[in-house]
Amino acid sequence: MQNKHKIILGIDPGSIIMGYGAIEIKGNSVHLIEMDVFKIGASNDAYKKLELIHEKVCQLISTIKPDAFAIEAPFFGKNVQSMLKLGRAQGVAIAAAMQSKIPVWEYAPKKVKQSITGNGNARKEQVLNMLQQLLKFNETPHYFDASDALAVAVCHYFQQNSPISSLKLEKSWKAFIAANPDRIISGNKM
Amino acid sequence: MQNKHKIILGIDPGSIIMGYGAIEIKGNSVHLIEMDVFKIGASNDAYKKLELIHEKVCQLISTIKPDAFAIEAPFFGKNVQSMLKLGRAQGVAIAAAMQSKIPVWEYAPKKVKQSITGNGNARKEQVLNMLQQLLKFNETPHYFDASDALAVAVCHYFQQNSPISSLKLEKSWKAFIAANPDRIISGNKM
Repeated sequence: MQNKHKIILGIDPGSIIMGYGAIEIKGNSVHLIEMDVFKIGASNDAYKKLELIHEKVCQLISTIKPDAFAIEAPFFGKNVQSMLKLGRAQGVAIAAAMQSKIPVWEYAPKKVKQSITGNGNARKEQVLNMLQQLLKFNETPHYFDASDALAVAVCHYFQQNSPISSLKLEKSWKAFIAANPDRIISGNKM
Repeated sequence: MQNKHKIILGIDPGSIIMGYGAIEIKGNSVHLIEMDVFKIGASNDAYKKLELIHEKVCQLISTIKPDAFAIEAPFFGKNVQSMLKLGRAQGVAIAAAMQSKIPVWEYAPKKVKQSITGNGNARKEQVLNMLQQLLKFNETPHYFDASDALAVAVCHYFQQNSPISSLKLEKSWKAFIAANPDRIISGNKM
């Protein structure tokens, strides 16, 4: 089995806003290091934007010093134009990790939601709520891009700690109940 | 006006084969430095492939020491999946240039063909033929990806040397005639 990563940087790349979130694993507990967004802006210069993403990710890597890099990566999109843009944004972010020889992991949004809340179709609020419980913080970020990025880091933590699927299912089920207390039906009611 | 670039590296990024070609400008003449392809292979590991592209481009930059980086960049594709892949390949190649603070220029395939042969719909053989005349070489590369990449470097050279469109048109027209000798109609024949 792979060595477990101690510091995981999660990135949710976008061409206008990029979310990022980092966690540190100490023994069996996970701690929030940082969570925020980087506003790339709506410049018309596509290369300037890619450069800003690349610089920001390089900077995050040099300050946070992660040993794993996880990105949220949707595999579908509105159209070929938006997918090319997204691919480029992902590409420069991935290259920043590669430059520092940090392994890259990728998770689809549904997988991230499933891993955190137990429900692949969970709302962003539910994901944030679950992260607040898991990582013991109260702040609500201004943008869900930040909590989405944090979620992908936590998703990677869960993945590397759940080598067998039964464990994953158990975790997901527990997470589902924790995230959806209103879905627990007590008594005989069907 | 910008300073003219002396060494231009052209890249035709792909997820299986990446073409590259470099030219050096000495006074008013252009010389071929290198033209080849890098076979990325058909590995299933998408990250390994991106890493190989990134490493190769970094290596090319450190040996060729270009002061401009030009990529062929189609803006359309078969489907969103292939565009995401292409975007990522472009992204890691672009990031390699950004790391070395080399400005990046991008040209659509039609623009490259137009610039080299005067015809935006020219066949790859015509582009190669014109490059052979312009850069005085006889070799025929095994893959058109190599000559396509060289073409984008030459296209950038033409662009920076043709600040006014009349010049560009003249060049294109001359290039068109040179590339299409069979299209010259002599005498009164219509």
